[in-house]
Amino acid sequence: MATSTHETPVIIGIVGNSAAGKTTLAAGLAKALGTDRTVNICIDDYHRYSRADRARIGISPHNPDGNYMDILEQHVALLRDGQPILKPIYNHNGGVLEAPEYVEPKPYIILEGLLGYATPRLREAYDVKLYMEPQEEVQLKWKFQRDTGPGGYPVDQVMASLERLKRDSAQFVIPQRTSADMVVRFYAPDERPEESGVHLNVAHILRPTLPYLDLAPVLEAGADKGVVLELARDVDGRPVDVFDVSGGVDADKAASLEDYLWGLVPDSPADRPAIGRFRDGKDEPHVGHALAVTQLMIAHYVVNAAVGHHVS
Amino acid sequence: MATSTHETPVIIGIVGNSAAGKTTLAAGLAKALGTDRTVNICIDDYHRYSRADRARIGISPHNPDGNYMDILEQHVALLRDGQPILKPIYNHNGGVLEAPEYVEPKPYIILEGLLGYATPRLREAYDVKLYMEPQEEVQLKWKFQRDTGPGGYPVDQVMASLERLKRDSAQFVIPQRTSADMVVRFYAPDERPEESGVHLNVAHILRPTLPYLDLAPVLEAGADKGVVLELARDVDGRPVDVFDVSGGVDADKAASLEDYLWGLVPDSPADRPAIGRFRDGKDEPHVGHALAVTQLMIAHYVVNAAVGHHVS
Repeated sequence: MATSTHETPVIIGIVGNSAAGKTTLAAGLAKALGTDRTVNICIDDYHRYSRADRARIGISPHNPDGNYMDILEQHVALLRDGQPILKPIYNHNGGVLEAPEYVEPKPYIILEGLLGYATPRLREAYDVKLYMEPQEEVQLKWKFQRDTGPGGYPVDQVMASLERLKRDSAQFVIPQRTSADMVVRFYAPDERPEESGVHLNVAHILRPTLPYLDLAPVLEAGADKGVVLELARDVDGRPVDVFDVSGGVDADKAASLEDYLWGLVPDSPADRPAIGRFRDGKDEPHVGHALAVTQLMIAHYVVNAAVGHHVS
Repeated sequence: MATSTHETPVIIGIVGNSAAGKTTLAAGLAKALGTDRTVNICIDDYHRYSRADRARIGISPHNPDGNYMDILEQHVALLRDGQPILKPIYNHNGGVLEAPEYVEPKPYIILEGLLGYATPRLREAYDVKLYMEPQEEVQLKWKFQRDTGPGGYPVDQVMASLERLKRDSAQFVIPQRTSADMVVRFYAPDERPEESGVHLNVAHILRPTLPYLDLAPVLEAGADKGVVLELARDVDGRPVDVFDVSGGVDADKAASLEDYLWGLVPDSPADRPAIGRFRDGKDEPHVGHALAVTQLMIAHYVVNAAVGHHVS
């Protein structure tokens, strides 16, 4: 087995609201890091109750009390220690708890979910902590695209759930934003305010806790390709760097920048897999440039974190 | 909570063949130790495959490869460390894997199953290791009583399974006997060769690895009540003590001996629960004297092991 379990795995967190794009980001990130070297874990699997039981008890899936938070902490510690886990399974299709599955650690472990930074022990577990915060209108479109899609719910039911979702989000999810090393914000360009897909821009809000990376070469390579770095104030007033990627650059420039970024991911898969892919409902997957750049930049940070990790 | 998770739990193993009386022993032992202070775990819950999948793959439930042995080792270590586990569930009714359950450690943890001593790491986990080895004819009766009972199988199907069971037992179960501190052997009295219930005798084969216990007071109290200690050779030729209990003593003597043994279990429940109970099919439970004495004697050993444990 090429992936030794004796090296300490690198653990990447992706937290954000329902339909914030966590799973889509995680899927492309795993491809950039190499799916054979990466384990993706969805924290929803640690739900303590089935959907029916939650309705009966009156508890939200966003509430840590409705999740096996201590078992999640334990499992992350075990994986980091190179041990396998028997991971619970929550099946969104039906909202039921199922028999657990055996999961072995790999060099990269991506944990994505609503509550990844909800406890101190969890927050300490990650090498890189991401938070997904798309523009509100964009996220709402994503929510409807997904939840009213095949096997989903009627539109009026999704509408009716939004009020509660907003309360839960404010109480349980958004407070975790402050723990992130990097906030990822997809947003519609000024000239296309209705955009929610391929032409979205993205801003990476970079906090000083992120593993250090010299961005000068990327900025130089991306200078004429819609990539800029700006000093800004975060919503909490603190100074941050904002790495901004335009989703509207032409195909040649996009390909050239992505090609450059692939070169920065050491030991990346020989056959570069298609990244930046997303679905917006029933159609075949689309490819978004800003999403591809985001997945590659995070892979770059993560591999960089791994190097620091193994050297120290 | 009276049961602090900071004290290291005492772990008791019960291993033996299918229908060797493991669950019945474990249930009474938990009562003697106090059910609020005891967690019973059935190792069958660590089956890796459903009954249907086993049939398809062609693997026996007795084969360690058909069980999550490493997860079992991990869970035992976690419980011993005072941590909760998310224990898998195998439902014998249907032979299916189900959603796991949250289990918190308690001062006494009883692990019973086919493969409890199958790996070195497991063998090191116990404070007291028991092995159930009823007389062959007795075990065969127990097997039929249970497996052809309500919700069970047709008699010819149980018959047909015996040959394979015997092979599996010889390959996977019996080799673990040598790791036990104490072998428990229920057997029919000479004068009732057909007995398989209340009047069974029992021999406790005591190995020197068992926590030390001064048996002189018990032997004195039991002198006229069918209890004797004899020096003997085990089937492997090694010298052992055999603590023998007659199931045929009259009710007064039985009650008097059980009462004496209850007094030896410190912090035993104020309301002494009915122990020595077993089922032999559809009927109401019976009470066996030799079984009651076995459960109390083991509780005595276990509490004694716990004292050594917490002092050291």
